[in-house]
Amino acid sequence: MGPIALLTDFGTRDGYAGVLHGDILCINPAAVIVDVCHDIPAQDIRAGAFVLSTVYRYFPEDTIHLVIVDPGVGSERRAIAVRTAVGTFVAPDNGVLSYVFAREPVRAMVQLTEPRYWRAVLSHTFHGRDLFAPVAAHLSLGVELAELGPAMQDPVRFTVPQVRATREGNLHGEVLHVDRFGNLVTNVPAELVPAGQLLRLQIAGRELRGVRRAYAHASDGELLVLVGSSGYLEVAVRNGSAADTLGTGRGTEVELIVGS
Amino acid sequence: MGPIALLTDFGTRDGYAGVLHGDILCINPAAVIVDVCHDIPAQDIRAGAFVLSTVYRYFPEDTIHLVIVDPGVGSERRAIAVRTAVGTFVAPDNGVLSYVFAREPVRAMVQLTEPRYWRAVLSHTFHGRDLFAPVAAHLSLGVELAELGPAMQDPVRFTVPQVRATREGNLHGEVLHVDRFGNLVTNVPAELVPAGQLLRLQIAGRELRGVRRAYAHASDGELLVLVGSSGYLEVAVRNGSAADTLGTGRGTEVELIVGS
Amino acid sequence: MGPIALLTDFGTRDGYAGVLHGDILCINPAAVIVDVCHDIPAQDIRAGAFVLSTVYRYFPEDTIHLVIVDPGVGSERRAIAVRTAVGTFVAPDNGVLSYVFAREPVRAMVQLTEPRYWRAVLSHTFHGRDLFAPVAAHLSLGVELAELGPAMQDPVRFTVPQVRATREGNLHGEVLHVDRFGNLVTNVPAELVPAGQLLRLQIAGRELRGVRRAYAHASDGELLVLVGSSGYLEVAVRNGSAADTLGTGRGTEVELIVGS
Repeated sequence: MGPIALLTDFGTRDGYAGVLHGDILCINPAAVIVDVCHDIPAQDIRAGAFVLSTVYRYFPEDTIHLVIVDPGVGSERRAIAVRTAVGTFVAPDNGVLSYVFAREPVRAMVQLTEPRYWRAVLSHTFHGRDLFAPVAAHLSLGVELAELGPAMQDPVRFTVPQVRATREGNLHGEVLHVDRFGNLVTNVPAELVPAGQLLRLQIAGRELRGVRRAYAHASDGELLVLVGSSGYLEVAVRNGSAADTLGTGRGTEVELIVGS
Repeated sequence: MGPIALLTDFGTRDGYAGVLHGDILCINPAAVIVDVCHDIPAQDIRAGAFVLSTVYRYFPEDTIHLVIVDPGVGSERRAIAVRTAVGTFVAPDNGVLSYVFAREPVRAMVQLTEPRYWRAVLSHTFHGRDLFAPVAAHLSLGVELAELGPAMQDPVRFTVPQVRATREGNLHGEVLHVDRFGNLVTNVPAELVPAGQLLRLQIAGRELRGVRRAYAHASDGELLVLVGSSGYLEVAVRNGSAADTLGTGRGTEVELIVGS
Repeated sequence: MGPIALLTDFGTRDGYAGVLHGDILCINPAAVIVDVCHDIPAQDIRAGAFVLSTVYRYFPEDTIHLVIVDPGVGSERRAIAVRTAVGTFVAPDNGVLSYVFAREPVRAMVQLTEPRYWRAVLSHTFHGRDLFAPVAAHLSLGVELAELGPAMQDPVRFTVPQVRATREGNLHGEVLHVDRFGNLVTNVPAELVPAGQLLRLQIAGRELRGVRRAYAHASDGELLVLVGSSGYLEVAVRNGSAADTLGTGRGTEVELIVGS
């Protein structure tokens, strides 16, 4: 099997993220482990789901993505493993895989119920260490999904926010994510913006005209719209933060007026 | 030998943590290196010691733990390597291994005095790069502890705060650590709380009743007590920060009233 | 080839840094990848250049340094690969390699123009993922520099701030970097301070006397001057932050009075 890619909200001040490496190396000393991101805002399932959506397709198809944002740890929420053509995902069943479910056909999905693939003692507060990481390590050694527990259906998932057409024929979307540069990543796919069409985007009482090719095609401090690295329209400020400039964040509505 | 696990207060804004990887790879290009944590508060030996205490037992027993929180670098403080049944530790002799000494029998301990295992030039400000990381790399190649310097005794250590019984028969403890979720980790081991006994915990003028099984067994924003992932009682707020809610942090006293 | 060392301003809140690992592992599943630093201040080319200058010489000579601080992504700025005796560098041509050019003879330098070593689709906003990381991965598989594009000259570089002598015979320098401990790293090489000479350093209206051997050779909270880990004079506060104490940062002028 391929690498194990870690995506969590564990932060970097404690040993929570580091201990996953120890866990995995105890089971598979030859595992290749990648720290994709541990700074998902605490317990923010939607942020974790979004960041995952921007990375998994760039990893090898035999990657095991260990995705842990788990406010329900110790409750009855299920633990799951999901196989798709582009990766295997191990996570709590709380919606953190919603973008994966929206985009990738599921080849197999199981509920993690077999304690022989976990640590001997299961805490009620840290299944990342006691259950998820050991399961990922066993998968990396070639254990079959079916050995981990029974097949299951209907995982928890939230509806990925969709762009909708307004009565006036405009497109109505929203900001899905604010990145470290303060860029506002919307849910409007670039394909919806016909090439050569003039576009006006309204956000937070401002109207921005046109889609620029790159950050560098604006003046310093200027607000601009461009196609971000995940293929969605993004509102940015050259060498600045659009989130700060507009005082907005995730969930902010955007309206697109596409016309001649 | 096994992996080299890095735990430092070097932060992530500079190249201080990254350069350790370079150091090690120059000596052992096949080393497996884990970044456990580099965000220990600057020069906070007790925080480093605590975080180490939560991770080392989850790593393979042949792991070399490189632990660098070193405000005394360049002074006469010693540099040491310590072998136990559950790991080898390389660190400044300043108390950062206090929890290890409190819990693990020491099989061998040496002072690092042999410059042939260091960088050729030793700075006075960065022994992590010039001494500790090279020593860890040599250990990972199979160099014996005894080659690194003479055996030593009586390392510097602080007393790990102990729970004590009060006159009234209650238990008196304190907060050892605040984690990234704002959870207050106390020094009260769960074993001290008899199963089935009602417990009241007093902290910062508040009294909390009972031990919950998991964060999810409280309402949003509610303060609760539970057994944390390291086996100590923890004060938490569901989907919030107990440290912020109570306005407290490390060193805060807690009193437990165990009774029927 | 040796390891691939990543140095970026991508931060750790998103998947931008993690995705580089995926990229590389798709091309070279056996690559050794080091996260040197992802917390260069956003789009701060000089900070990236400085941090790089403190690390590259501590890595194996066959290391591929992937250095991405790229405010000009999507513009006409070039992408380059540079071979020196102490490492190979892949970066945007924007000055982020200025210290390397100032110190290391260049053995070969090419402009990255061959799309067969990139991702099939090149975004205009994330060449780290689509161009630089794939190129680094191919280099780690043994692809020759000359295959990546035509030889080039005159890369963009800024002048590394030089110490100059004043009319009075003093030395005039500046602060190059503030590290996570609040230490002010100047551009004054320790070699310029004759051993045994008394030194006075003026900064922000204060005058500090003498060069201490280590942080520990000052009282708690005291300002001091010492030779930092990169061989430059550094202004520090023992167990505190010189940047906070003096209210200064990068670019602050320092004047050295060397005399008997």
